[in-house]
Amino acid sequence: MADFPPRDSSRVLNDVVQRLCASYNIEDSVINHLRDSTLPGRKATIRILNGLKDTLFPDHRLGRQVRSGQTDYNIGAILERVHEELRQQIHQAHSYDYGGEGARLPELREILALDVQAAMDGDPAAHSFDEIIFCYPGFEAIVTYRIAHELYLLGVPLLPRIMTEYAHTRTGTDIHPGANIGRSFFIDHATGVVVGETTVIGERVKLYQGVTLGALSFPKDEKGQLVRDTKRHPTIEDDVVIYAGATVLGGETIIGQGAVVGGSCWIIHSIPPGTKVALQDPLMKIRGPKP
Amino acid sequence: MADFPPRDSSRVLNDVVQRLCASYNIEDSVINHLRDSTLPGRKATIRILNGLKDTLFPDHRLGRQVRSGQTDYNIGAILERVHEELRQQIHQAHSYDYGGEGARLPELREILALDVQAAMDGDPAAHSFDEIIFCYPGFEAIVTYRIAHELYLLGVPLLPRIMTEYAHTRTGTDIHPGANIGRSFFIDHATGVVVGETTVIGERVKLYQGVTLGALSFPKDEKGQLVRDTKRHPTIEDDVVIYAGATVLGGETIIGQGAVVGGSCWIIHSIPPGTKVALQDPLMKIRGPKP
Amino acid sequence: MADFPPRDSSRVLNDVVQRLCASYNIEDSVINHLRDSTLPGRKATIRILNGLKDTLFPDHRLGRQVRSGQTDYNIGAILERVHEELRQQIHQAHSYDYGGEGARLPELREILALDVQAAMDGDPAAHSFDEIIFCYPGFEAIVTYRIAHELYLLGVPLLPRIMTEYAHTRTGTDIHPGANIGRSFFIDHATGVVVGETTVIGERVKLYQGVTLGALSFPKDEKGQLVRDTKRHPTIEDDVVIYAGATVLGGETIIGQGAVVGGSCWIIHSIPPGTKVALQDPLMKIRGPKP
Amino acid sequence: MADFPPRDSSRVLNDVVQRLCASYNIEDSVINHLRDSTLPGRKATIRILNGLKDTLFPDHRLGRQVRSGQTDYNIGAILERVHEELRQQIHQAHSYDYGGEGARLPELREILALDVQAAMDGDPAAHSFDEIIFCYPGFEAIVTYRIAHELYLLGVPLLPRIMTEYAHTRTGTDIHPGANIGRSFFIDHATGVVVGETTVIGERVKLYQGVTLGALSFPKDEKGQLVRDTKRHPTIEDDVVIYAGATVLGGETIIGQGAVVGGSCWIIHSIPPGTKVALQDPLMKIRGPKP
Amino acid sequence: MADFPPRDSSRVLNDVVQRLCASYNIEDSVINHLRDSTLPGRKATIRILNGLKDTLFPDHRLGRQVRSGQTDYNIGAILERVHEELRQQIHQAHSYDYGGEGARLPELREILALDVQAAMDGDPAAHSFDEIIFCYPGFEAIVTYRIAHELYLLGVPLLPRIMTEYAHTRTGTDIHPGANIGRSFFIDHATGVVVGETTVIGERVKLYQGVTLGALSFPKDEKGQLVRDTKRHPTIEDDVVIYAGATVLGGETIIGQGAVVGGSCWIIHSIPPGTKVALQDPLMKIRGPKP
Amino acid sequence: MADFPPRDSSRVLNDVVQRLCASYNIEDSVINHLRDSTLPGRKATIRILNGLKDTLFPDHRLGRQVRSGQTDYNIGAILERVHEELRQQIHQAHSYDYGGEGARLPELREILALDVQAAMDGDPAAHSFDEIIFCYPGFEAIVTYRIAHELYLLGVPLLPRIMTEYAHTRTGTDIHPGANIGRSFFIDHATGVVVGETTVIGERVKLYQGVTLGALSFPKDEKGQLVRDTKRHPTIEDDVVIYAGATVLGGETIIGQGAVVGGSCWIIHSIPPGTKVALQDPLMKIRGPKP
Repeated sequence: MADFPPRDSSRVLNDVVQRLCASYNIEDSVINHLRDSTLPGRKATIRILNGLKDTLFPDHRLGRQVRSGQTDYNIGAILERVHEELRQQIHQAHSYDYGGEGARLPELREILALDVQAAMDGDPAAHSFDEIIFCYPGFEAIVTYRIAHELYLLGVPLLPRIMTEYAHTRTGTDIHPGANIGRSFFIDHATGVVVGETTVIGERVKLYQGVTLGALSFPKDEKGQLVRDTKRHPTIEDDVVIYAGATVLGGETIIGQGAVVGGSCWIIHSIPPGTKVALQDPLMKIRGPKP
Repeated sequence: MADFPPRDSSRVLNDVVQRLCASYNIEDSVINHLRDSTLPGRKATIRILNGLKDTLFPDHRLGRQVRSGQTDYNIGAILERVHEELRQQIHQAHSYDYGGEGARLPELREILALDVQAAMDGDPAAHSFDEIIFCYPGFEAIVTYRIAHELYLLGVPLLPRIMTEYAHTRTGTDIHPGANIGRSFFIDHATGVVVGETTVIGERVKLYQGVTLGALSFPKDEKGQLVRDTKRHPTIEDDVVIYAGATVLGGETIIGQGAVVGGSCWIIHSIPPGTKVALQDPLMKIRGPKP
Repeated sequence: MADFPPRDSSRVLNDVVQRLCASYNIEDSVINHLRDSTLPGRKATIRILNGLKDTLFPDHRLGRQVRSGQTDYNIGAILERVHEELRQQIHQAHSYDYGGEGARLPELREILALDVQAAMDGDPAAHSFDEIIFCYPGFEAIVTYRIAHELYLLGVPLLPRIMTEYAHTRTGTDIHPGANIGRSFFIDHATGVVVGETTVIGERVKLYQGVTLGALSFPKDEKGQLVRDTKRHPTIEDDVVIYAGATVLGGETIIGQGAVVGGSCWIIHSIPPGTKVALQDPLMKIRGPKP
Repeated sequence: MADFPPRDSSRVLNDVVQRLCASYNIEDSVINHLRDSTLPGRKATIRILNGLKDTLFPDHRLGRQVRSGQTDYNIGAILERVHEELRQQIHQAHSYDYGGEGARLPELREILALDVQAAMDGDPAAHSFDEIIFCYPGFEAIVTYRIAHELYLLGVPLLPRIMTEYAHTRTGTDIHPGANIGRSFFIDHATGVVVGETTVIGERVKLYQGVTLGALSFPKDEKGQLVRDTKRHPTIEDDVVIYAGATVLGGETIIGQGAVVGGSCWIIHSIPPGTKVALQDPLMKIRGPKP
Repeated sequence: MADFPPRDSSRVLNDVVQRLCASYNIEDSVINHLRDSTLPGRKATIRILNGLKDTLFPDHRLGRQVRSGQTDYNIGAILERVHEELRQQIHQAHSYDYGGEGARLPELREILALDVQAAMDGDPAAHSFDEIIFCYPGFEAIVTYRIAHELYLLGVPLLPRIMTEYAHTRTGTDIHPGANIGRSFFIDHATGVVVGETTVIGERVKLYQGVTLGALSFPKDEKGQLVRDTKRHPTIEDDVVIYAGATVLGGETIIGQGAVVGGSCWIIHSIPPGTKVALQDPLMKIRGPKP
Repeated sequence: MADFPPRDSSRVLNDVVQRLCASYNIEDSVINHLRDSTLPGRKATIRILNGLKDTLFPDHRLGRQVRSGQTDYNIGAILERVHEELRQQIHQAHSYDYGGEGARLPELREILALDVQAAMDGDPAAHSFDEIIFCYPGFEAIVTYRIAHELYLLGVPLLPRIMTEYAHTRTGTDIHPGANIGRSFFIDHATGVVVGETTVIGERVKLYQGVTLGALSFPKDEKGQLVRDTKRHPTIEDDVVIYAGATVLGGETIIGQGAVVGGSCWIIHSIPPGTKVALQDPLMKIRGPKP
């Protein structure tokens, strides 16, 4: 570094630092956090998430093999750490005192086993359960959603969303922690899937990449503010399959039990149970061989 | 490791090493870098990007709360480090001598505050500004674009692209640093958005996941080489909304002020201001309930 | 942490640990790994992948510049480590004994050089070969696929899939290691591309973001189990271009040589060579300027 | 690890864990810390020490070169971090509230410069001031003592001792933070030097390896408890030199100004100023050449 | 690094590598390890030692405060890891199969509590038990010895010595793991203490810095080889105090109960119980004031 | 941290930072480094030292077992890195250009093998060569000295001293890199040994802990400056043994071939070859049993 020009720009640097520091104190700036409260830590939240996943899949994530009748101290130690970090983060997100809801973990394991089975039943490319747990981004998104949803139900702010957006970054699947999703859920290929906050999904539903379960319009109140608590996203009943790139919009839209939505379909009205909807064949214009 | 077979494949290994080393010296191989110049470092570039983000959002990324009238030495130290690393990387990308353009950071904070406000105004699922800054991948992509765009304007090669592709990896949104994007920009759900190099976007524009603002065709010069510097991507005027999965192509395509492009639309011609374009309803064939 | 309430939830914690540990021993749970075998490590597998990439692109990833006639010990050391770790992981995935197939690396470098050239020829936004190697997610996905495919051909279980799903996480491109892909392959923008297990792709093929090469239906055998080894994904012949968001489905679907599939097209039948298929213009309904 | 015997010793393990956990609760065990207070962290204390050293010797420890008139943000950031960590540790060692005594640092730099000069004046093997600052363990011990002594004067418990014992580990020189040491102090070779809690040392004193300035006897009170606050260690006046391995004991022992204590001497009475004390020559018996 | 001269020394480098690699294969070189066995890992051994210390002093090293009736999963997890790593290392040091001797840990805690009490009783500079556990190098050496001695008694090769030499590096006290040391042992200031392999030390013994308990001569057998298994080091009976720098040599030398050995004494014959031995006062020649 | 008092001491902090930064610019302060030169890095120097040790003892430090005829790429890669880092550090210590003197490493291995053998021959507590290489601090000090001495001979400033002082910190043995030491050298127990800059040591010499080979007096020139380049330390001829705590001083002092210097002796005159020198027995006063 010796051959770099001398640090003669120190005056510019000082000036930028002063101006930045001044801007951190502008009280009504939307990118400054309010001074009288604290924020949870993004890294701590992700550590919590990963700790919980470790206790859910110790074989795959920790390489541990617990034998019958044995207590696995490692699992206990992880849970103890997660528990304390979670309390601290929830406290920082200043809502309420968390009191041991990790109690739901054994039940979560039962539910996730059904999701793994659904992936095996739904994808001929799956060669083993291990492959699904190890590699499937759709499954990773579902695991994260199911953990975050528990915290969402407890009214914990921010943390559930940090968790699902972390999974979004890794898998390309954006499931809002507020969504309500039944058992045996499978998302294949995962990239580009969006499941909105007020979506309701039944059991044994299967989605493919690029599926959007979104809002159709955003009503505003008399002051022109967005109304934030209405049901804006669709209801998907049991046994529905929605193929790649399909879009289903609207809080009153219901995809009836057993319906099949074809790839790239655009659905803004309800579909009756058992119906199969697909793009029409003559959608494409074929312009003969190129010269 | 003791029970592994002995390392009898050392001859094969030696041979592969020799052949690889020989291949590194093939001068005209497109995967060997030219010997008379140096390359910037990918990791250093990402460190620079993250350092700049830290100074833009110290509350959220560093947990710091600067009080009125105080100098935050940490911010200064980060900027000092970023400044030196940036100069070094720019020098390695052998273009010119960087001289303190970090001076734009305070202005960037003002512009990013408008982007955060746009997200709050555009998404009923957003519960706080903090949530947007913490979690929204679309916002992360915009922050990175705005930083990289400043370097792009200064003619710095490679680094801006490394930054935006890093954001692409994390968010699924691929904004070329050369694009020209106005204030109060919002991208919801983010995955699969593509904004090409010569795109021009006005103020208060809103995009949804899977939107492509791309090129229609790639003209070649008389030697059959791609022409690289024409306007190939569309112009999106102020207050336009483009819904999920829509595709807008071509350098002469203009989406007029206030227009709305419906989900999954395919646009290769200009749309007049105020127009609303959507897929036709009867696109889908409904094949009654499955037997 | 001193001001947190005392750890009075220890009884709940103990109970959860006991129940979790008990659940790890349920033999037929699909989320417990079978006790009589070992699993490969996800982190080790990714280390192997990254080591191999380092030896393929030492200029860009290691900043090394090997001179003519020189042996680069670093490359040898990386390969030695990769080789041992690979043997160990393959052994753990209990299949067979790996014996030095790294021998294919010099050939891989030749093939990857063609892929880089294809990106340069296909993207006017590419300003240098270095930019492609450094930044292009599509290229990263192809590199990973080509490495994983070699292991797939050797019958190695799990590892190839862990590798391509790692690339999927980073690039949004999901190429199954079993796919068969020819030379000079280019994927632009990358997010949301899916290439299924039994896809066959010729030479000089170009894909854009959001393209799916998928299965149309999943036949089941007489027991109702999915048939896993048929050709379910399409064949793409030489010189085909498939634009953003197009979907091509079915094991018997062939996109003929030189054909062009337009953006967002939905293809479930074969397309003759040289044909150009596109969405029809009048697909959209234009609802005049908004009031 | 596969070839290890199965973990059948889990019952033994459980038993040890139970017994250990029980033993942590024995209230009067001297190796359990009292439950109603907290302990400072050893690692944090050493981080504080190293941070303070960084601000004292930025050229040597940080490779920084501050130019005239410039503010070094890095130094500020280090001090800010040290200040907060110090307050936290002092708070945990529950004594009082620390309020910015780092203010003594600039003075410390002046005093340490005299110590460096003393080393140069006292050791013909020293080739540069840099060598002394970089390498001399005696100087490292003195720097640490001077920092710890400041905290000792403020009544901070435990932390000063943790700091000097850290230096003891690294240099072999054990200076109690309570000792009172004048300017221009030099310790050559350092290993095995002991300077007791109530030692008083004047200016320009020089010690060699293995010198002990210790206590002669430990009076007990009527209950048989050690009396802890008397002067038990000697007084060394200005300009004294004490050579390797000499031992000076007792709180009333005074080595007068300018005296020289020869190597391996054993001193339990005062030595007048200007005196030179040495082992007698005929101490050794010479037993002719070995057969 | 760009301005360094080109790597033209690669031929020299290649040559050195070849010659080094050749030298690694010289079978009878005493610095090459025998090929048909494995070596334990130094780092793993130190990890084991530190893990065991963590379970012995969780308050001071881990900041944990276990409450009555609670199981500390962290302690269990540490022990589980230590247990496995220890088995692996012992296996590599190819001796025998370790089977859960960690069972001695609770007893060790009782013995160490006596050592802490001895330090408090013996050192007026000690202000709290915590200070002794945190800072006293002599206590650190004793803890390490007591752990290593347990492994030594089990016949484990190499590991005990690696542990005590690690403590030697940190504390300057070199206690051979084979020494036999009673309860309530205290070493003050620690640097330079040597306790040989066949030393026997009673209860309530106190040593100061620089004390050597060593061998007087090394008998050889008829082949001129050192005889390695005789008692070569002294016996120190209960309640003995040995002051700084004293040397006690010889396997038949016994320091009788309650004896006191003065600083710098040189003892090669037995001392009766209750005796006090000291250097004679007139040892030093006083050469009047310097001119 | 929320319950800590507010950072109201920021003004004090600012003041200290300003004063510290001002003090860094005082040109003639002996603790500021001269601005027109650079300093080597302490951490880099220690990395170099450890890299060289790795290539000298790959079995013990790297767990590598090179087979006959094989090239160990790892060794080459380490040497390549060491070579470059060494050139850079030597350049920063601005002396001259280093050109591949690592060529001495194979010879060093031969010399070190003799030192290991000397330890085995000299210490009955040594149970294997591996134990010596793994654990003996005296051997660690010798290895470091031999490496540093090579650099000292090449005229490299500062680096050799940083290396030997690092070994001093770890082993308690302070060998100046300028000393001249013959083959088959052994230091037992190591703590507190000092070997001065101009010491000359023959072959097969054995030292025990606490031995000082030092200077007797420091002549000054007419200006009162220490004369730095005379022979100030003793000469120890072949086959000499010097026991624990002995002190040998003076540049003209010669310990003749085969002489034995007893523990705690104080030697300032030459000793003829074959002589045995020891402390006289009646040195101690025995004060009968304590009452």
